[in-house]
Amino acid sequence: MPNITVELLKGRTVEQRRAFAEAVTESAVEILGARRQDVRMVFQEITPDVVANGGVLASEDASRAEVVAKHGG
Amino acid sequence: MPNITVELLKGRTVEQRRAFAEAVTESAVEILGARRQDVRMVFQEITPDVVANGGVLASEDASRAEVVAKHGG
Amino acid sequence: MPNITVELLKGRTVEQRRAFAEAVTESAVEILGARRQDVRMVFQEITPDVVANGGVLASEDASRAEVVAKHGG
Amino acid sequence: MPNITVELLKGRTVEQRRAFAEAVTESAVEILGARRQDVRMVFQEITPDVVANGGVLASEDASRAEVVAKHGG
Amino acid sequence: MPNITVELLKGRTVEQRRAFAEAVTESAVEILGARRQDVRMVFQEITPDVVANGGVLASEDASRAEVVAKHGG
Amino acid sequence: MPNITVELLKGRTVEQRRAFAEAVTESAVEILGARRQDVRMVFQEITPDVVANGGVLASEDASRAEVVAKHGG
Repeated sequence: MPNITVELLKGRTVEQRRAFAEAVTESAVEILGARRQDVRMVFQEITPDVVANGGVLASEDASRAEVVAKHGG
Repeated sequence: MPNITVELLKGRTVEQRRAFAEAVTESAVEILGARRQDVRMVFQEITPDVVANGGVLASEDASRAEVVAKHGG
Repeated sequence: MPNITVELLKGRTVEQRRAFAEAVTESAVEILGARRQDVRMVFQEITPDVVANGGVLASEDASRAEVVAKHGG
Repeated sequence: MPNITVELLKGRTVEQRRAFAEAVTESAVEILGARRQDVRMVFQEITPDVVANGGVLASEDASRAEVVAKHGG
Repeated sequence: MPNITVELLKGRTVEQRRAFAEAVTESAVEILGARRQDVRMVFQEITPDVVANGGVLASEDASRAEVVAKHGG
Repeated sequence: MPNITVELLKGRTVEQRRAFAEAVTESAVEILGARRQDVRMVFQEITPDVVANGGVLASEDASRAEVVAKHGG
């Protein structure tokens, strides 16, 4: 531990995942005092039509159109 | 919050997800006193061959054949 | 299924949980076509000092003070 | 209950899932005193490029190459 | 991996948890071909008043009274 | 999104949680291109007697004694 689950919109590149995994692991070691080998991270990629905020699916939410478009949702 | 995760058999339509997200958000506002914008819901769709009840995969469980067929499992 | 996990601020009453479980189960039956006996719900109650939005712990977030106070956070 | 979630590398066969679900259900009944019909298990299959240990994606981790290859990662 | 989460009624002894962790790890090695050191298990203990089946809280469900009583719910 | 769940041994201070939430949110904004207000993080604190690695409870695992002691496990 820590065991970290990252639920995010599908569409990030493997480079982004690699860099984020490294950065968060570094923070876990420095800030939480974790051992590097114990830090585990899983990305759960989801599409905008299976997540809702305030009762509105992200795929149909004007206020999230830019974010959805940006990540190839 | 609340942050609501709904694990269900793959096969529902976007109309069903839209209506369910709206209905549950309404209940969260009315019953739990949540703020609408804070209510988040994610659907995790799974297929019948990766879930088991009583040790039997749903894809091989006669007692669930109707449910599996109904939702395009 | 569906198997529904509700992550929410600690402090709701058993009456609220009972009513919410009943309302969401009803919606799952009516909207998702689930069998009543298959609908499962778990409440995961958390305190404001272990959840952060935009990098700020809810227990230290002025914009959430009212919500936190309301639910006996 | 128990409700058991098994996060594992994609690539196991349905025979392996069937046998594992049966074996773990048996252990839950014998060791935890659960009722067979209450034991639920879900397999969450993930690919090696979305899980990291020690900040390194499994798909790029030499120390896991054999495991990844074995399970058709 | 596998990373296994076991959600169960609070009340099992550390002996039960120890024996179940060992048995399931053994099954993961034998059936899933996992490496022993990679098998991780977390128990999430919950009380009967935060879980509902068919819209009824386990703490108020006559059909589960025996199970709840047996595990010191 | 991203919605980040951090499962870790109980015992870190609120200062550590605050600093980790801020650091990971910063990384999500910079590396994943997330909007700050959309980044959500929940800490799930667990005790060493409910987590097992390689079939051995952390509370009984000599190789983890130091980590467990360090975090007031």
